[in-house]
Amino acid sequence: MALLVQKFGGSSVADVDAIRRVAQRVVATHNRGNDVAVVVSAMGDTTDELLDLAQQVSPQEPPERELDMLLTAGERISMALLAMAIQELGVPARSFTGQQAGMHTDRSFGRARLLDVTPGRVADTLRAGSVAIVAGFQGVSEDEDVTTLGRGGSDTTAVALAAALDADVCEIYTDVDGLYTADPRIVPTASRITRITIEETLEMAAHGAKILHLRAVEYARRFAVPLHVRSSFSDKEGTWILVARPLTAALRRDGSLRPEGTDPHQPEQTTVPPTSGEEPMEDPIISGIAHDKSLGKITAVGVPDRPGAAALVVGAVASVGVSIDMIVQNVSTSAAGMTDISLTLPEADGTAAVAAIRELQHDLGFADVIYTSHIGKLSLVGAGLRSNPQVAHRMFGALAEAAVNIEMISTSEIRISVITDQRDLEDAVRAVHTAFQLDAEDEAVVYGGTGR
Amino acid sequence: MALLVQKFGGSSVADVDAIRRVAQRVVATHNRGNDVAVVVSAMGDTTDELLDLAQQVSPQEPPERELDMLLTAGERISMALLAMAIQELGVPARSFTGQQAGMHTDRSFGRARLLDVTPGRVADTLRAGSVAIVAGFQGVSEDEDVTTLGRGGSDTTAVALAAALDADVCEIYTDVDGLYTADPRIVPTASRITRITIEETLEMAAHGAKILHLRAVEYARRFAVPLHVRSSFSDKEGTWILVARPLTAALRRDGSLRPEGTDPHQPEQTTVPPTSGEEPMEDPIISGIAHDKSLGKITAVGVPDRPGAAALVVGAVASVGVSIDMIVQNVSTSAAGMTDISLTLPEADGTAAVAAIRELQHDLGFADVIYTSHIGKLSLVGAGLRSNPQVAHRMFGALAEAAVNIEMISTSEIRISVITDQRDLEDAVRAVHTAFQLDAEDEAVVYGGTGR
Repeated sequence: MALLVQKFGGSSVADVDAIRRVAQRVVATHNRGNDVAVVVSAMGDTTDELLDLAQQVSPQEPPERELDMLLTAGERISMALLAMAIQELGVPARSFTGQQAGMHTDRSFGRARLLDVTPGRVADTLRAGSVAIVAGFQGVSEDEDVTTLGRGGSDTTAVALAAALDADVCEIYTDVDGLYTADPRIVPTASRITRITIEETLEMAAHGAKILHLRAVEYARRFAVPLHVRSSFSDKEGTWILVARPLTAALRRDGSLRPEGTDPHQPEQTTVPPTSGEEPMEDPIISGIAHDKSLGKITAVGVPDRPGAAALVVGAVASVGVSIDMIVQNVSTSAAGMTDISLTLPEADGTAAVAAIRELQHDLGFADVIYTSHIGKLSLVGAGLRSNPQVAHRMFGALAEAAVNIEMISTSEIRISVITDQRDLEDAVRAVHTAFQLDAEDEAVVYGGTGR
Repeated sequence: MALLVQKFGGSSVADVDAIRRVAQRVVATHNRGNDVAVVVSAMGDTTDELLDLAQQVSPQEPPERELDMLLTAGERISMALLAMAIQELGVPARSFTGQQAGMHTDRSFGRARLLDVTPGRVADTLRAGSVAIVAGFQGVSEDEDVTTLGRGGSDTTAVALAAALDADVCEIYTDVDGLYTADPRIVPTASRITRITIEETLEMAAHGAKILHLRAVEYARRFAVPLHVRSSFSDKEGTWILVARPLTAALRRDGSLRPEGTDPHQPEQTTVPPTSGEEPMEDPIISGIAHDKSLGKITAVGVPDRPGAAALVVGAVASVGVSIDMIVQNVSTSAAGMTDISLTLPEADGTAAVAAIRELQHDLGFADVIYTSHIGKLSLVGAGLRSNPQVAHRMFGALAEAAVNIEMISTSEIRISVITDQRDLEDAVRAVHTAFQLDAEDEAVVYGGTGR
């Protein structure tokens, strides 16, 4: 018996029939002897419809507190209906709002941060043999105002709940059957990743892979929550995202050791995560390719190469509330001791960031600021990349063969990112995917967009 | 300056335009220097749509706790949008759920009773110069579950909030411009009642008048909350429902005496209730005629006329959870000492009540039980009816002239009710209305159904 958190996005509960299917899955999991806590998003387009109503009433900018009050109606509907559907199948179920489930946040309406998670009522409900259903995306502030967690909020709710309940696994149900070696819409032969470390997933999410929200992955990493990303339309296993669990967590709640691998009697219904670290980690293992089309690039040209110059540029951008994606500064090779500082950032923030940097021009004395919208970013993610120069060599070679010019390069221990012209990006993804022999024999199945 | 609670039903907030109109009215009231707390129902058909979803998922009977969770999403949407619309007009506004507004109830999902009302946050919001918006219809149980107050719940919320805030008046906005001397759909010349006592309103509501829910009127009477029932489509005064306020309440919050009557400078925007009891109460004053088509009638025939017989019959009906409308037992005139006991009750409960009474047949030894569905009840309501036999005389005379047979009669201090064949009821209402010269010169304006 395991304790599972199952998260279903908006597309998984889009209508009454979809809710019934989710109920069947939850009941099946419950009837196999597991404790199941479910996290749901709002039904299908509910959030967009509510946002549209808000926009009609407040065309400029709806007040944040009231917008959160409005949007949280969405999960209230889906979770109550799901509880009813589960009870129809003969299993007791109770739904809980963010407040009732103990999702305590700060007061930042629309993008609240979790401060504490105290799911006492959820735990009591599971202990009583019922299914607990928790509203995703929502919390309550210290002064009892309703808050929402912002984009990716329901994933974050699920992971946070799994951490607080010490769940064996947090299953993220979506309309794709796992993480892929590349976006199947661009690389039809992309193959499903069966296992990946949480750090690699973090890099994938941070650099454009859209199935899991970065914030939820960060949360899962910090609290060592194993994730299982899988399709709500099939029983097939999806992608296991494995974490280095603290030793104590390897003990099951009854004191016995966690079994190695999965239960052979239920190969299609594995609920407990496989053990990580089974394969030797010395050879580089490519997990996949992430790409991102949402960025712009700013270059401050001819910056005096002296201590503090980069800090000033970055500080100026940060002071206007813009989050920076990559920062690249090469060594100064010019006789005049000048360098260029480039950074990538969300395209929508380009104008504000450029203005902030321009204000430094007099003090810092750089030559010019250049802004490029519509850049593309391709990131190769895998274990042991930095210690294996062959990987970068093969990657850059593949790009050269595909006649893709590399504008910037940035690397981490487990990631190599390049900036290209956005028009070259899809060709670049396909070329690198093929170069690393990631192509599967069959084409991937894609169902559409994902929920919040 | 006064403190007002304004309640808007579902038809008053049916769409974004309607919400904007409500916002304008609230802001106008606020800008005249009043403190305004607003209670809203769900938008238009939202509740029916949510009920329909629940019915699809749980065709038998949706679980009560989850149904309440579901339905309360409705007010969450309307109140957040209304708060936004008010802020758009430059007035600060905050919305509150039943829980946030301190609406504490018992655990009876779907028909919860208020146990305590502690609107501390609402009072703080008003003190800060903001408009407070409270979700009608909903509360929270001691164990922090979401509850709903059942039919008429939003009216009850408004009256309870007004009582707890010691508001000067609770304004009930609806799609009719007040209480009428009879249902304008049956008597087109029915005239609007300008002032009526709470006791008469109670009789009207209990005997079929549909604008105000009985429970809200009972609450208003117990806590001496003056009500003003008026149209959300016009600025005209509606019907003032006046209560005998405790002496202390005649003092305003600043210690000055409540002014007699209304402010002469704003004849169309009176907010403080006129003083009750200005007119001599010795002559009978007919308030209006209520009618009810939802009842059935049970008669236990040939009941032995001995102590305890009526108690047994009533007890049997009560034991199956059926609420009784009228009970009539005439004096025994038969030689055998037999009498008939008749009672009226909601038509839907007829079968259960008949079965319960039949079980008594052996012990009590009555001859038969007769059930009549589709009866009609007409009630004449007004002050001083019992002490003026002329009223009953004129009423029964008018019915006789209209060839309406009277099947049962029941009276209270301020009401005379007769049971007729349901097919005669509308004729009966018109005949009595005319006999008491209640007809107005113009036809009444009727807009449609009312919200919850």
